[in-house]
Amino acid sequence: MANPDIEHGSIGEVVTQRATLFERNAPLVLEGGATLGPVDVAFETYGELNAQRNNAVFICHGLTGDAHAAGHHGNPERPGWWDNFIGPGKPVDTREFFVVCANILGGCMGTTGPSSIDPATGKAYGLRFPLVTVSDVVRVHRALIADLGITKLRAAIGGSLGGMQVLQWAMDHPEDLGAAIVVCATSRLSAQNIAFSAVAREAIMRDPNFHGGDYVDADTRPDAGLAIARMMAHITYLSEEGMRNKFGRRLQNGTTPRFGFDVDFQVESYLHHQGEAFLGRFDANSYLYLTRAMDYFDPFGDMEHAAARLADLDLPFLVMSFDSDWRFDTSHSREIVRVLSAHRVPVSFREISSPHGHDSFLLVIPEYHVTVANFLRRAELPPQRRPHAS
Amino acid sequence: MANPDIEHGSIGEVVTQRATLFERNAPLVLEGGATLGPVDVAFETYGELNAQRNNAVFICHGLTGDAHAAGHHGNPERPGWWDNFIGPGKPVDTREFFVVCANILGGCMGTTGPSSIDPATGKAYGLRFPLVTVSDVVRVHRALIADLGITKLRAAIGGSLGGMQVLQWAMDHPEDLGAAIVVCATSRLSAQNIAFSAVAREAIMRDPNFHGGDYVDADTRPDAGLAIARMMAHITYLSEEGMRNKFGRRLQNGTTPRFGFDVDFQVESYLHHQGEAFLGRFDANSYLYLTRAMDYFDPFGDMEHAAARLADLDLPFLVMSFDSDWRFDTSHSREIVRVLSAHRVPVSFREISSPHGHDSFLLVIPEYHVTVANFLRRAELPPQRRPHAS
Repeated sequence: MANPDIEHGSIGEVVTQRATLFERNAPLVLEGGATLGPVDVAFETYGELNAQRNNAVFICHGLTGDAHAAGHHGNPERPGWWDNFIGPGKPVDTREFFVVCANILGGCMGTTGPSSIDPATGKAYGLRFPLVTVSDVVRVHRALIADLGITKLRAAIGGSLGGMQVLQWAMDHPEDLGAAIVVCATSRLSAQNIAFSAVAREAIMRDPNFHGGDYVDADTRPDAGLAIARMMAHITYLSEEGMRNKFGRRLQNGTTPRFGFDVDFQVESYLHHQGEAFLGRFDANSYLYLTRAMDYFDPFGDMEHAAARLADLDLPFLVMSFDSDWRFDTSHSREIVRVLSAHRVPVSFREISSPHGHDSFLLVIPEYHVTVANFLRRAELPPQRRPHAS
Repeated sequence: MANPDIEHGSIGEVVTQRATLFERNAPLVLEGGATLGPVDVAFETYGELNAQRNNAVFICHGLTGDAHAAGHHGNPERPGWWDNFIGPGKPVDTREFFVVCANILGGCMGTTGPSSIDPATGKAYGLRFPLVTVSDVVRVHRALIADLGITKLRAAIGGSLGGMQVLQWAMDHPEDLGAAIVVCATSRLSAQNIAFSAVAREAIMRDPNFHGGDYVDADTRPDAGLAIARMMAHITYLSEEGMRNKFGRRLQNGTTPRFGFDVDFQVESYLHHQGEAFLGRFDANSYLYLTRAMDYFDPFGDMEHAAARLADLDLPFLVMSFDSDWRFDTSHSREIVRVLSAHRVPVSFREISSPHGHDSFLLVIPEYHVTVANFLRRAELPPQRRPHAS
């Protein structure tokens, strides 16, 4: 299955750029009616925009991602989060494509979010930040590509919440996209998905250091709650099988149980580390806002409204899932495929076998990478509406 | 599948009894070498012990259960936790059996645990309470039945951690039991199982009100952490399908999302309620001790040692699982059956179809109840060692 065309070159050193896309007197109008301005956006680009400005690919990141998708910031040992996917000879080949990745609205990695300063008060927004939706996230992505002089993308690509952005973008503004790649995403969270996010938010909001979201003013942080949220999320990112292979019941030190409450099993050590590492890079309020945007995401919920949009949707989709993913299992992807197909949107679907659960989309899985590379190659051709496969 | 023999009578009003089984100068010696005394035990009994004292059935409760399994304490609308299972005409028929249920060692419902007063200090034990194992829990059960003048039980029955106690009891003292019923249990937690428990304990121990386990002295309680632990556990007790059927994406009030961080989806309201209700009845330190006892449980781990015990095991087992249970899925039960069968222990196995996940063992599912009732009826006959079904 390995494709000899796909080598693994590196983009090399990159820098995160910043743009201010909306001003206070020309603010972003959100889906819920609130306004935001200025809106700063952190983004990175890889490769060269061609003279026709038609070789751009947009990368939509997941819940806790950032603009730094590929290359490195000085230390080649610490590349961007999707460096195995983007670069010369990689599935998103930077010898061919101009790649853009931006931190999302509501985030905390350089794009305006609840930890940003509210110009009206001079203090961090906290929970006064308006609720943002996936459509709002897409609004800012669109403003960025316009700012870069791009009117149409070759493709938008994303995994998990990133895939949800791609789906929303295609429904809101199909004219922007030449193709859509939606990996291990969903068109709506299940009750169990919402439940996990709800408990994560409770952990943050019940932390005494949360201070109603104004922890910055209180010069503290709800670290306990945020770590718990992250640890719990990590359980859902790995498969049962993946956890068994990776940790089993192995002990952290030696073979004799310590019979106490300190970290003893390797899986405890792993989760503990994930929780602690997260504190240094993520903001608790952003976690609340972005998980809530996921809960409310439901682009097919009002089917009459959705049908009108889907009737205009004439771009090829690639929808992919991983068979061991139980965060958004294959039935979520199949539902996207079912609705798109029913509305005669050309959609390819692939369930990839992988033991690594939801995290698979970040890993090098040859069948997955080759499928993306081949789809992008075919997507250079003008899309043709295919008959409905009944 | 409904059995007309099984009517649903009630035991009526019952009272919790108390016994002190170990004294300070004749303490319980734990598996880890520590001693505990006095050990108080809260228990209930239903039905009548016959003259031969050979009709007793012991009920082992799960992680957060208590001695009050059946009947009621004054309000028939609030029966014991397994009232649908125990009573006249029910699977554990109190017209025939004398039923005993006791709160487990390390618990917080009347039996000695970390919230009890340490006679050496006059203060609550807190984390100075010794780590207890499932074998230690069984030691106290055995002392109780001896105190009641019973030398051999007709059967021991338990679900989840209760089933783990039954398995351990059978391996430690097969001479005590006429039969063993192990429902939705495991012989060892998986990495994922341990992970969920580890995060639950982190939520409790990172709560600033935990005070290193001495929250009683500090006149506070780690309620935030304990509620989070309970909410997370509840996600694992229900199946994905059960949650979808019960809540789906339905909103708590009306059909218009409120777009905020307050409880909005019904599944959030359910979890919130479960978290709050738990605070009134359970102790955070007990949650730590009992989940840790589960983590370390591994009776087949040292197979050489286990094989010697299994060679002496000559009592019929009924092992049951539920097909939608993902807390301890059927593979856990199959592993118990595999090891027992390999050592020629007579074991019947039944996987019951139910959409209700791990919680199924507490619900009225006719095939489940009839299977238990029929097994108990057959278990009255002297057990016969069957040839190994290869």
